[in-house]
Order: sequence, then structure tokens, then C-alpha cells
Amino acid sequence: MRMYDLIMKKRNGEALTEQEIQYMIREYVAGEIPDYQMSAFLMAVYFKGMTEEETLAMTQAVAHSGEMVDLSGIEGVKVDKHSTGGVGDKTTMIIAPIVAACGVKVAKMSGRGLGHTGGTVDKLESIPGLQTSLSREDFFNVVNQTGLSVIGQSGNLAPADKKLYALRDVTATVDSIPLIAVSIMSKKLAAGNDCILLDVKTGSGAFMKSIDDSIALAKEMVAIGENAGRKTVALITDMDIPLGHNIGNSLEVIEAVETLKGNGPEDLTEVCVHLASNMLFLAGKGTLEECRSLVREVIANGEALKRLAAMVEAQGGDSSVIFDTDKFEKAAYQHEVLAKKSGYITFMDTESCGIASAMLGAGRETKDSQIDFAAGIILKKKVGDYVEAGEPMAVFYADKEELFAAAELRYQAAVTIEDEKANETPLVYARVTKDQVERLA
Amino acid sequence: MRMYDLIMKKRNGEALTEQEIQYMIREYVAGEIPDYQMSAFLMAVYFKGMTEEETLAMTQAVAHSGEMVDLSGIEGVKVDKHSTGGVGDKTTMIIAPIVAACGVKVAKMSGRGLGHTGGTVDKLESIPGLQTSLSREDFFNVVNQTGLSVIGQSGNLAPADKKLYALRDVTATVDSIPLIAVSIMSKKLAAGNDCILLDVKTGSGAFMKSIDDSIALAKEMVAIGENAGRKTVALITDMDIPLGHNIGNSLEVIEAVETLKGNGPEDLTEVCVHLASNMLFLAGKGTLEECRSLVREVIANGEALKRLAAMVEAQGGDSSVIFDTDKFEKAAYQHEVLAKKSGYITFMDTESCGIASAMLGAGRETKDSQIDFAAGIILKKKVGDYVEAGEPMAVFYADKEELFAAAELRYQAAVTIEDEKANETPLVYARVTKDQVERLA
Repeated sequence: MRMYDLIMKKRNGEALTEQEIQYMIREYVAGEIPDYQMSAFLMAVYFKGMTEEETLAMTQAVAHSGEMVDLSGIEGVKVDKHSTGGVGDKTTMIIAPIVAACGVKVAKMSGRGLGHTGGTVDKLESIPGLQTSLSREDFFNVVNQTGLSVIGQSGNLAPADKKLYALRDVTATVDSIPLIAVSIMSKKLAAGNDCILLDVKTGSGAFMKSIDDSIALAKEMVAIGENAGRKTVALITDMDIPLGHNIGNSLEVIEAVETLKGNGPEDLTEVCVHLASNMLFLAGKGTLEECRSLVREVIANGEALKRLAAMVEAQGGDSSVIFDTDKFEKAAYQHEVLAKKSGYITFMDTESCGIASAMLGAGRETKDSQIDFAAGIILKKKVGDYVEAGEPMAVFYADKEELFAAAELRYQAAVTIEDEKANETPLVYARVTKDQVERLA
Repeated sequence: MRMYDLIMKKRNGEALTEQEIQYMIREYVAGEIPDYQMSAFLMAVYFKGMTEEETLAMTQAVAHSGEMVDLSGIEGVKVDKHSTGGVGDKTTMIIAPIVAACGVKVAKMSGRGLGHTGGTVDKLESIPGLQTSLSREDFFNVVNQTGLSVIGQSGNLAPADKKLYALRDVTATVDSIPLIAVSIMSKKLAAGNDCILLDVKTGSGAFMKSIDDSIALAKEMVAIGENAGRKTVALITDMDIPLGHNIGNSLEVIEAVETLKGNGPEDLTEVCVHLASNMLFLAGKGTLEECRSLVREVIANGEALKRLAAMVEAQGGDSSVIFDTDKFEKAAYQHEVLAKKSGYITFMDTESCGIASAMLGAGRETKDSQIDFAAGIILKKKVGDYVEAGEPMAVFYADKEELFAAAELRYQAAVTIEDEKANETPLVYARVTKDQVERLA
């Protein structure tokens, strides 16, 4: 077998066999296939796509390039959730405790933030003492004891994906739907859960800007998951407006806690109910309607919040901040961003809002940047709200006063104020299962 | 400027600017742009093509990556010819002396053979003593003295092309028409001639298998040449049947000499008259009809043959072999290939004929293989001819008897014999100038 022939085959629009794909991934990871051949192959995939059989074979091959986590040490059905990343997306910290409180295990490995989107691991680390690097044994113990655990992703999970992603990142082959699907699902398969709920974000703050692309990606990922023997469902959710009001690490933990108390913003609460009830549905806890009731119940009776506190405690964190969020360290400075004119907010470039928050210290520019946990933005007005000229639209938090000016410039440019109120956008656009695409809006 | 952005631009179907292309080639040659980015770019070009402005800019940039030969030391108009390579293509050795005998200078750098096609430099080296590595000064002196010289291509001609070609060769991006055009024309621009005649071969023995592809390639190359200020014309000529009867190095020299004497095969003679008259036309020697008469004249009066002998002498060769080709060293063994059945030859897979000849020792498997100058094939029967079962179709020549069996297997499989005679194929399909494509068949 020669890589040359595989590039040629793909370039000519033919499908590779499972054996060819296994050979390609194995030899690439071993350094036997050079980057310059792989990048030509990836560009050919960009133009010619891959069949369902090819994406499955490639996902399996990439997953098997590293550790395949064995979760059998955890009792019962294990449900994973993956979000394609958004601004102000603190859903994991809300739905994992909800699902656990309903009796379904959540053993989740999460990523760190880079660029305009935050990462759950960074957010959790804003809780004093909380550890996100656990041994497999400790991880399983936390899940068995509290019903859930969220830790950082292990370095040896799908190493082929790391190598492939680094190459795609410098060869303009990142935004290929089958390659994105392979990248995400290889890590999900390696992570070992029985069921996978995919939250595919769509809109100005998401990687996928259009609903059609988001549905296409969701379909590919659901097909991979199901073909690999995992129960898989995807929801297409809105990221044309930041989710909730808080952007930034401890700010988002605080909002997650409020939501678990039943006091969260309507949009965030609604999305979390959707996600959590679908996870329970996948785990076989009843109809979607029954699962929604279960979710409402564990929020109302405080069980979900207790689960979050239990996990924090079990991972070495100080759970008192969960019950009294005023205990979180505050940013040294705050700054109100005032509306320049009166009218309705009709659009927020959500990616720019995320970048403004990162500029305040909440995000990373490079992998080695230090995060300021208390930095970020609280949105006072969102799309659909009316603002008076001079009224605060948002409050910025940062450790250095000089960070405000540039971030405000970015933020003001991201917000459009007009005389007419814009049409409301739905929170959840569609639900994608192996059999159908159910439009919800 | 970042290579990433240039890949993205091409991937999205946009055209690069001249500055961007210059940057890309310069930094690639300097090793600042890695192969894995260039191969992704080349694959994007395969799918998205390049505009006329882009191919020109890239050809110029590649040409300028090395020596730009200054032929001003040679008086008068200099005409170059390029063939895309074929089996039994000995036209350079025929038309260069013809053109020189008509008073137009030919200062030509040629390549060596690789794979199934031979190279003019190898063929010339079968003439005892003849040198093809001359200093610039000696090269100019031979041309000024005899009207022509054919030497090997200098190592520093378009080094960017060498680097790009090596990469394309392993990334399945060789057969992209704009990239082929850039590769050929960059070396032609660097070689410094005023006029360029392109012989684009089409058919089973050519790189371009279809006439449409050949015309597309010809149009791109003519546009580049003309846009770069060189008078350029292309002929699309047949390579569905080997040209002439002889395949192999000294065998082809012998056939070239016969043709210069007016005793050559009809197909070879006709193609050479076409090529040579177009070269003279480019050099301003009159109408095409007038140029054809000039060509016929210098064959008939022996002036063309004398020019070949003069060049051989000037390049240190023994010109007596030109006047008496029996003096060429003979192969140790010969072997008749007999027809397996009676009928008309309707098809010869010409690439396979070339490979059979190479298997006999006439070609190279790798760049370092030794060539047997006397080895090769003399075709006794070609497409259109009737053969009786058991009648010789070809004679093989080799230095080792054991080479015959495998080569015959290849050759027999390449020849199709049927009851009905096939339609005759034309020798020259089209003439492509900057203004039009003139169909000649």
C-alpha cells in the first residue's frame, strides 16, 4: 500500500477502504507517512468529502491511535455530552449534575479554552482547590461516589487527532465537515461512554455559522456514533447570541449555580433542560417528556446543585463557594459599557463578545497564556432588549484597568442597535437522530 | 503575508496576486514555507485551477528562481522547441538541423529520458564522443559556428520547478494542467529563446491522453509564452502510435539521419515538416506555406544533414556515423516478435511499447540507471498494417538474450489485431496560437 495511491484515489473522488484508512492513520502517527502527503490528502477530502463508511473507519482508526478508556469500572449507563464550543457556554456544569441527580452517570473529559470560546476545565478551575487532573482510579471513584466527574482530557486520547489537527490548522483544511466529525467523534469514542449527546452550536459565535452546515455536521457525527455502537443524538442550538449573561470563568460558574438553583436566565435554563433531558432519554430514563419532568424536579428540589457541590468536594475543591458564590474572588476593576444610542439591540457578533472577554483576561491567546479567573463580562442587555443612550449594556471585569479600552472598542463594534426590534431567534433549531432531522424551529 | 492565507484563498477559488505568488515561490525555495503547506496549495490548485495572470506570475517566479540564460551572445533570432514527450520521438534531432539550415538559430537545452519516453540528450550521447555538457561559452560558440547546438539542461535552470515537481510527484498533483504549463514554460522562459514552438503529444503514449486536455494545456502554455513576450505556437500531434519505426537511442539517431536524407518514414517526416515550418514561421521566415517549402528544400539538398554532422563534430562527436550509420555499434542479440494471429493492427498501447523498449535496456528505471545505446525496437508493422500469423511485427535489440521474454510479453499485450482495419488517425490535430485553435483534423 502506498500513500500516493490513497491521495490519488481520494482526489479522483473514490472511497478508501477500511484497511487503507487504518494503514494511513497508523503510518502517519508512526511518522512513516510525511506531513506533505497527509496535507494533500486532507485538501482532497476538503473537496471530495468522505462516505459514511470512510468517516467511521477514520474515526475508529484515530480513536484507536491512543488509549481507549474503559469505563467498565463505573456502574450503570454512562452518558457523554459534547459541545462544539460557544461563548458563555457553561452548560456542562449545569447538566452534568442534573443528569447525575437523575441517576445516570456522567464521566466527562473536557477541554480547555482557546481563542474566543472558553473551556469547561478552565471554568471549573476557578473553584478554589478543584483538581481536573485525576488518575483513572480517582476519576472512577469520584463518579461512583457522586454520580459525576469532569476532568481534563488525557494527553493520550486520540493522539492521531492531535497530529492531524495541528496539520489542518496550518493548511486551511480545518473547516471540512467530515474531518471535523472525525476529530470530535474519535475523542468521544476513545472516552468510552455508552451514549453521546452532541450540542452543535450554530451562529455568529459558533464554528458553524449556518444551520445547514450545523445539521450536516450533526448528521455525520450521529452516523459515526451509531455505527460505532454508541447511542447518539445531536441538538442544533443557537450561538448567535451569547448563552446566559455571564462570560468568563468564575462568572460562568456563578451563573451555572444560579441556574441549578432555578434562578438562571431563561435562555440558558431552557437549553440546559433540552440537553439534560436528551441525555436522560439516551440513557433510557423514559420519553423525552418524562425526562424533562425529571430535570425540572432535580432543579426544583435542589438535588442537582448538591451533586455539583459533591463533585467539587470529591475533586478537592472548596464547595462552600457553590452555596455562597459571593466567596469567589472579585476582579480588581469593573467598567460599565454604555449604549451609544437608543434603540433595540438587533445583533451581537458573539465571536467578538468572546474575544472582548478574552482581551479582559478571561481567555488564552496561546496555549501557555495565564487565565484571570475573575475577568469577563456580565451582559446587561442582549438581542431583543431596548437600551437608552448612556444606559449600561454590559459590565466588564478585569485585573488591569488599561484592558478596558480595547475590549470596549471590540464590544461596541459587535453590538448593533436599531429602531426596529429584530425577530426572536429560537434556542434549539433541530434534533438529529440516526433516523431523522426533527426541526424544532 | 502568510502561506496559510494563500492556501485558503486558492481553496476558496480566489486568485492570488503577483506579489503573493512571488512571495510563495521565493519562500518555498528558501525553505521558509514547508512542503506540507505547498502540497495543500498544489492540491487546491488541482481542484480550483489558476487564472491566466496567476499562471504567468507563477511561471515567471519559478523561472527567476535560478539562472535566466542570456542568449544575446548568439546572433539573430533563436527558436526553441519543446515536446511533452513521446515514444520514438526523435524530432529534435531532425528539425533542429533543418531550422538551422534555413538560417534560424537553435540553441536548445534538452532533458534525459525517464520511464517510457526517451530523452534527446541520451539519444545524442549514443553518437561516439559527442558531449552534451558544454560551458555557456562553448554552447554559444557551437551555435554561432554551426547554427545549432543541443545540450543537457543546466542544473540551475528553474530550481523551484525541480523542488515543486518532486513534491507533486509524491502528492498526486502532477496532472494539473496549469501546474504542467508552469513547469514546462518556466524552463522555456529561463532558457532565453525568442520564439517557442510547443509540440503537445496526445494519445496512448503521451502524458495527455485526450485531445481536449492537450488543447487546454497548449492554450495555457501559449498564453504564458505570449504574455511573457515570447512568440509561441503549439501543435497538437499524435502519440497514439509510436512516431517512426525505431525506438531506442542509436536506433532513433539512425532513423533521424534517414529522415534528414529524405528517406524517413512518412509519419515522422510529415510531423517534422510541420514542426520545423512552424519554427521558421515564428522566426519570421515567411508564411507557413513558404516555410514548408524551405524545409523541403534543405532536406532535398542535403544541407540539413550537413548541419547535424557539423553540430556533432563541434560537440566533439564522430560525425562519420552520421554519413554511415552502419558504423553504430550493434546490439549483441536480436529477436523477432511474431504476430500471434492474422489481421489488421488496430491499436498499439504506445506507452507499453516504450516500456518494452526500456525493458530491453534503452531506458532508465531510476535516474542512475545505465542506458544501453544499441538496445530498442524496430517496428515492422504499425497500426493500419495487415499481418499474417507468424509474420514478424517487430525486431527487438538487446545486450542480454534473457531480456527478450518479458519485453515480448509486454509488447504482445500492447498490440491489438482485429479483422477490420481501424480508421486512420491524423498526425497533427490542431495548431494553437494566442488568438485561435485551428483544427487540422
